[in-house]
Amino acid sequence: MPEQSTSHLDPASVRRVVDAALREDGAHHDVTTNALVPGDQLGNAYVVAKADGVLAGVPVAQCAFELLDNCVIISPIMPEGAVLKVGDRVLELEGPFAPILSGERVALNFLQRLSGVATATRRLVEAIAGTQARIVDTRKTTPGLRELERYAVHVGGGQNHRFNLSDGVLIKDNHIAAARNRDLSITQVVEQARRDVAHTLRIEIEVTTFDEADEALRAGADVILLDNMPATEMRRVVEHVQGRAMLEASGGVTFETVRGIAETGVDLISVGAITHSAPTLDLSLELDL
Amino acid sequence: MPEQSTSHLDPASVRRVVDAALREDGAHHDVTTNALVPGDQLGNAYVVAKADGVLAGVPVAQCAFELLDNCVIISPIMPEGAVLKVGDRVLELEGPFAPILSGERVALNFLQRLSGVATATRRLVEAIAGTQARIVDTRKTTPGLRELERYAVHVGGGQNHRFNLSDGVLIKDNHIAAARNRDLSITQVVEQARRDVAHTLRIEIEVTTFDEADEALRAGADVILLDNMPATEMRRVVEHVQGRAMLEASGGVTFETVRGIAETGVDLISVGAITHSAPTLDLSLELDL
Amino acid sequence: MPEQSTSHLDPASVRRVVDAALREDGAHHDVTTNALVPGDQLGNAYVVAKADGVLAGVPVAQCAFELLDNCVIISPIMPEGAVLKVGDRVLELEGPFAPILSGERVALNFLQRLSGVATATRRLVEAIAGTQARIVDTRKTTPGLRELERYAVHVGGGQNHRFNLSDGVLIKDNHIAAARNRDLSITQVVEQARRDVAHTLRIEIEVTTFDEADEALRAGADVILLDNMPATEMRRVVEHVQGRAMLEASGGVTFETVRGIAETGVDLISVGAITHSAPTLDLSLELDL
Amino acid sequence: MPEQSTSHLDPASVRRVVDAALREDGAHHDVTTNALVPGDQLGNAYVVAKADGVLAGVPVAQCAFELLDNCVIISPIMPEGAVLKVGDRVLELEGPFAPILSGERVALNFLQRLSGVATATRRLVEAIAGTQARIVDTRKTTPGLRELERYAVHVGGGQNHRFNLSDGVLIKDNHIAAARNRDLSITQVVEQARRDVAHTLRIEIEVTTFDEADEALRAGADVILLDNMPATEMRRVVEHVQGRAMLEASGGVTFETVRGIAETGVDLISVGAITHSAPTLDLSLELDL
Amino acid sequence: MPEQSTSHLDPASVRRVVDAALREDGAHHDVTTNALVPGDQLGNAYVVAKADGVLAGVPVAQCAFELLDNCVIISPIMPEGAVLKVGDRVLELEGPFAPILSGERVALNFLQRLSGVATATRRLVEAIAGTQARIVDTRKTTPGLRELERYAVHVGGGQNHRFNLSDGVLIKDNHIAAARNRDLSITQVVEQARRDVAHTLRIEIEVTTFDEADEALRAGADVILLDNMPATEMRRVVEHVQGRAMLEASGGVTFETVRGIAETGVDLISVGAITHSAPTLDLSLELDL
Amino acid sequence: MPEQSTSHLDPASVRRVVDAALREDGAHHDVTTNALVPGDQLGNAYVVAKADGVLAGVPVAQCAFELLDNCVIISPIMPEGAVLKVGDRVLELEGPFAPILSGERVALNFLQRLSGVATATRRLVEAIAGTQARIVDTRKTTPGLRELERYAVHVGGGQNHRFNLSDGVLIKDNHIAAARNRDLSITQVVEQARRDVAHTLRIEIEVTTFDEADEALRAGADVILLDNMPATEMRRVVEHVQGRAMLEASGGVTFETVRGIAETGVDLISVGAITHSAPTLDLSLELDL
Repeated sequence: MPEQSTSHLDPASVRRVVDAALREDGAHHDVTTNALVPGDQLGNAYVVAKADGVLAGVPVAQCAFELLDNCVIISPIMPEGAVLKVGDRVLELEGPFAPILSGERVALNFLQRLSGVATATRRLVEAIAGTQARIVDTRKTTPGLRELERYAVHVGGGQNHRFNLSDGVLIKDNHIAAARNRDLSITQVVEQARRDVAHTLRIEIEVTTFDEADEALRAGADVILLDNMPATEMRRVVEHVQGRAMLEASGGVTFETVRGIAETGVDLISVGAITHSAPTLDLSLELDL
Repeated sequence: MPEQSTSHLDPASVRRVVDAALREDGAHHDVTTNALVPGDQLGNAYVVAKADGVLAGVPVAQCAFELLDNCVIISPIMPEGAVLKVGDRVLELEGPFAPILSGERVALNFLQRLSGVATATRRLVEAIAGTQARIVDTRKTTPGLRELERYAVHVGGGQNHRFNLSDGVLIKDNHIAAARNRDLSITQVVEQARRDVAHTLRIEIEVTTFDEADEALRAGADVILLDNMPATEMRRVVEHVQGRAMLEASGGVTFETVRGIAETGVDLISVGAITHSAPTLDLSLELDL
Repeated sequence: MPEQSTSHLDPASVRRVVDAALREDGAHHDVTTNALVPGDQLGNAYVVAKADGVLAGVPVAQCAFELLDNCVIISPIMPEGAVLKVGDRVLELEGPFAPILSGERVALNFLQRLSGVATATRRLVEAIAGTQARIVDTRKTTPGLRELERYAVHVGGGQNHRFNLSDGVLIKDNHIAAARNRDLSITQVVEQARRDVAHTLRIEIEVTTFDEADEALRAGADVILLDNMPATEMRRVVEHVQGRAMLEASGGVTFETVRGIAETGVDLISVGAITHSAPTLDLSLELDL
Repeated sequence: MPEQSTSHLDPASVRRVVDAALREDGAHHDVTTNALVPGDQLGNAYVVAKADGVLAGVPVAQCAFELLDNCVIISPIMPEGAVLKVGDRVLELEGPFAPILSGERVALNFLQRLSGVATATRRLVEAIAGTQARIVDTRKTTPGLRELERYAVHVGGGQNHRFNLSDGVLIKDNHIAAARNRDLSITQVVEQARRDVAHTLRIEIEVTTFDEADEALRAGADVILLDNMPATEMRRVVEHVQGRAMLEASGGVTFETVRGIAETGVDLISVGAITHSAPTLDLSLELDL
Repeated sequence: MPEQSTSHLDPASVRRVVDAALREDGAHHDVTTNALVPGDQLGNAYVVAKADGVLAGVPVAQCAFELLDNCVIISPIMPEGAVLKVGDRVLELEGPFAPILSGERVALNFLQRLSGVATATRRLVEAIAGTQARIVDTRKTTPGLRELERYAVHVGGGQNHRFNLSDGVLIKDNHIAAARNRDLSITQVVEQARRDVAHTLRIEIEVTTFDEADEALRAGADVILLDNMPATEMRRVVEHVQGRAMLEASGGVTFETVRGIAETGVDLISVGAITHSAPTLDLSLELDL
Repeated sequence: MPEQSTSHLDPASVRRVVDAALREDGAHHDVTTNALVPGDQLGNAYVVAKADGVLAGVPVAQCAFELLDNCVIISPIMPEGAVLKVGDRVLELEGPFAPILSGERVALNFLQRLSGVATATRRLVEAIAGTQARIVDTRKTTPGLRELERYAVHVGGGQNHRFNLSDGVLIKDNHIAAARNRDLSITQVVEQARRDVAHTLRIEIEVTTFDEADEALRAGADVILLDNMPATEMRRVVEHVQGRAMLEASGGVTFETVRGIAETGVDLISVGAITHSAPTLDLSLELDL
């Protein structure tokens, strides 16, 4: 399924971010484990779900143990994207206990966070099932973890927005305000963007009213972002635009409101909270003794 | 006040992590802003609170704008640790709009997350006001952001635990389980740690019952971590130990339960959720036009 | 003029690439200059054109001297994009001769290469003056110097294509061949790309015949790349498409053929040779003694 | 053959520069290929010559594919230094098409540039066949690629000059001018260099007239660089020096003039154009479907 | 034996420091070896002791050859910590001579230095055999090599002090002087430290007289450092403290004085000279031809 | 004086190595100083000599404090190369005590080591005063500190040998042994090196007997290294060579033997011990309270 490939994880990026986390945690100099666990004490351990949710980040957790000691054999039990129930075993580890204990926290820190993102995403995706809308992420990600968090959104069934400021055009309220201050209309703003950015990029613009949406459409915007617009007005825009531009809704999206928004007929619903405020999913590591 | 100094921010670390975040966000190649906002359009902008909470991370946000363009003048309006009300202006920016817009997201991503951590911490600290207990953080931090998040805990009024595996000894359940498997008692485990780690470190050990706590005490542990212990049993341990070791409570700590735990007489209450699951605090950037 | 801003140089990137070049050249350990030129011998020096062309890269050259010794005062005499005649003084340097001599080669290596790119670009831009077409660059740049070379194309009057594989969609012959092998039509390929990539990106596809161009148009491609197509056939495509998609010509573009191509009515003409094979512009550094 | 070893490629350097190029090109996030080419579509591909020339850089191209996906099997068909005819297959690739397509441009960018350098060098080497002179490179290389370009010169049959400013002494016109300004003669300059630099380095000095060459010789220079000297005067110098110093010619070297210069009897002819202005050699990647 | 694990070498750190040393030494571009030793000349070589001492650093030396060429097979003959006599073979190398010669100096530079540290440590450890005291290192290590030098101290039989300023508390004379200047007593200083640093760290304080030691003890210091104190006074302190705090002696420790210090009954004797002034142990590499 | 310039310190290299040392020492997170010394406690401090010797490394020590806090004002009292007596004040610091205390150890670790190297060098230089010989360093330097240690040798009055394997040719015993094994004579070895390495490098070869020295001379070696040769035989070589090659003595050089070696008439005496085994010079930091 090609869709899966779009936000595949680059192994080199994963290695870099995991390596930094292991150093941050002093995992190579774990004074407690070094003092208490001899290098030749071997055995099995399991990562176990302590809450229900969606699994994401297994390759990242795996990388943490591999970087500490390539003698640890790691066998995923549940696939990425699996629905977890409390008590499910997720991952099996086999080998020396010492690196398993030294890497536990870093591995879980990644796995819990990414599973938290995937879980929050999946809940929204399920809430709008049957509509044509798709859940998309935003740039409100954790600094340093954007690639991983976007991947977790994807695992959760969401769609990825532009990666960053350099690979997509999104004319936001502040851009328009600054332009208005120089007496430029929305039409002029869209034209200027069109003329100036690479021809490979679409022009997306944020509006807050029906009239602005209409002006954006007539100016030739490819995508129109309806920010914090009441559902009834969104519906008017959808009917007016009739597919001549894509429509993205944002602002005030919660598990309660999302279906109503989707049913207006917008194409995309972007939600910052799935990355910036998703609680982590509780998982723990248990030695099999 | 010396306490403030313990988790002061190292400016070089801040610069490194902010620089990485700006690159991640492509902030130096913001195609939208480059197309629409001329370099000589100047003005003022404000970071404004959209929710109540505790402010943390102003120097980090400041660094984001400075790294993009050192012509932007940034003036904090509220100090670190300030209690924010919706609508409060937090920070004033003055200079070219272009770098202000290109840096907005990165600056807010840090400021919202750190303020979220400080807010969650402060709520717990207030909940136990008047007891002798203190709120401490854990190693359940966001990979790559531990130094910043610990700082935010400190701003929120919390205390910092060991930084990582190399600078503190904490003998956890899995260490004890692995040792037991080799027929070592808690006493032997504590002695072995004492003999092996640098003499500058205290020995802390995790226990789950009164009897284990007693054995740890007699083995000479400096700090005893009471994991998921009922309040009544904690209280028994407190009375038994009588200050001969420090006592740290962990597990199942919520805004509801925290005061009851503090009133048992423990010295420290560690809470992972203040770093791993604190929702971000809503802040936004507004141009003054 | 906003257009200038699109490929502005990021000072931090410039510093990084120049710093690496200075290390590569051992400029901090110039044994000859160290032996012969005392640190207190001061004076003026000039960068002088030894050939006609277009100037690009002055800030890069400037950075080389600044990184070696911030006592050297560097005053541009000619602006970026200036048309140079043999003998023109381009840049004035004032300060200790030692760092001027140690930095000379690195500064000139950048300045000559970037001016070479700008010169080649300008010649093509002038050759198509009066048509609606624009010259655009490709990904056939020098490894490590893409940002600088794209900037030089911009200085020369060209337009920039996508920066890299992650920020633009271009379905090339090999993609189509691989897809055909799986029995996918051009229509299916375009649809699949549309469904899978971020909604902020346009879909560009490479075709070689009128029929393929027509199929691409009907499949909804935003941009159609006409590869190595005879001018007469290009003209047919232009007439058929009638602005419903942008048209980009590539392949076999020389100073002789470019005007003919532009006159077919295509929107863009991409040329790899302006970055991969532009001869450097001859410049030298002369001490004023 | 020991000569081959002098400019052998350091695999770690190659990996570093190729890795940087892959990141620059976003090859790990190729949105087009990710959308269109499933990971399990396998096959063969060939790098094919589209022009005549000399092959250089196969290990560099190889590294690009290996870094993207170590499942791609790369089999060189022609050896480094081989003479290519249009249509020759140079390299065979076997494995998943996706990484082959994502790495194509970076691999070719290196291979075309290095083959371009080798081709230009070989033409000069052949032009002076039968004389005792050797073609040497200069420091006029592409910033960041010196090691690779020197290697390509070597593959083309050229000889390498000093690597950089720290590992060889070359007293150039500007050094002499600066020294003259302090009333130092060529003799004094050579003596000062001799006294000051490590005893492991030879002293090379640039002169432009017979008299200067004679003074340099008497001052004890080990190598004399004859810059832009007419062939007849070079010949006079050669006859006068009689092997007491090495002689290097530079300036105004073209395919037309090089043999005349070599026949004067100089030992070395240095040519900047083989690295700074060699056109790339046209090569392409073709899928075998 | 758990003790061995405390200062185990992190392979990734070793690789980093060895890689940097190989680059510093230009080992990948050894012009002499490249010119004279063909890649296919194979054979054996040995590292041989030229002086008596204690061996440390074999894995580091090993890494140097492996990084240069993974065809070299390296077989340790003597284990870490072995007592060497002149003429002992320490390490066997088998493979191409070229990388063996290019890596010789870097490998020996590490091996000689670390063996020098281990040798100096072992001499002190043996001098105090039979007492309860232990030799500990200090922060007076070679910049960049602390981890390796601490490991060598461990191999020599010494104990490791805190790693650095962030993972241990040591209140030194200058801290006390600065505090006194603000009218703080030793008691207040200890209390302030106790309140401010993580509860996982012990409080160590430096004193120079019996009275200060007594005050420190009463203030609750965990460890008391007796700096440059006469043996008779140390003994008084030991008798007075009676195990209520650990005692560390420092200053004026030589091979002659160390036993007398140990016999006072202190727990630890810290010696800077074992890392900052230990002469290297003479070792050489010999080809077996 | 131009000689001074040859091993000038590159400020960027110094900053890099000092920055790494500060991180290694956790100087940005000095828990003791942070707890006890408030940021606004200001004053003066001095670096004071506790032993006689030669000062080197002041700019390096200076950099340590600057990197920690650019409010500290650092004023050198004694110049580089000054002869120190016990009690001499070397450096004055003025500003907040906190960064002065946090940076003390790193600054002293560099200053003591480099002054140790300069002191050892100076003693040898003085021992041979009046002869024509010069003391030169070797590649037996501390990994990571070669540039700094060579600089200290220079400050002590020594001369620098080749920097590393890539910028000088030295055919050592093992190279000759490997070549002999392939039936190559010393003459053939020198010729092969001559043919193969850049023409800017001299050929130096190590010999152990008069006959080998003679063969090396006839083979055209530029420099002949007399390894562990008795003084009488060295004198024979000196008389035989008569200035046709430079002569370098090495092996068994001590403060006692060095003058005898110099009086044989050799040009250079290389000594590894000045870098690998020089004891550090005792210096300390004292607050002025």
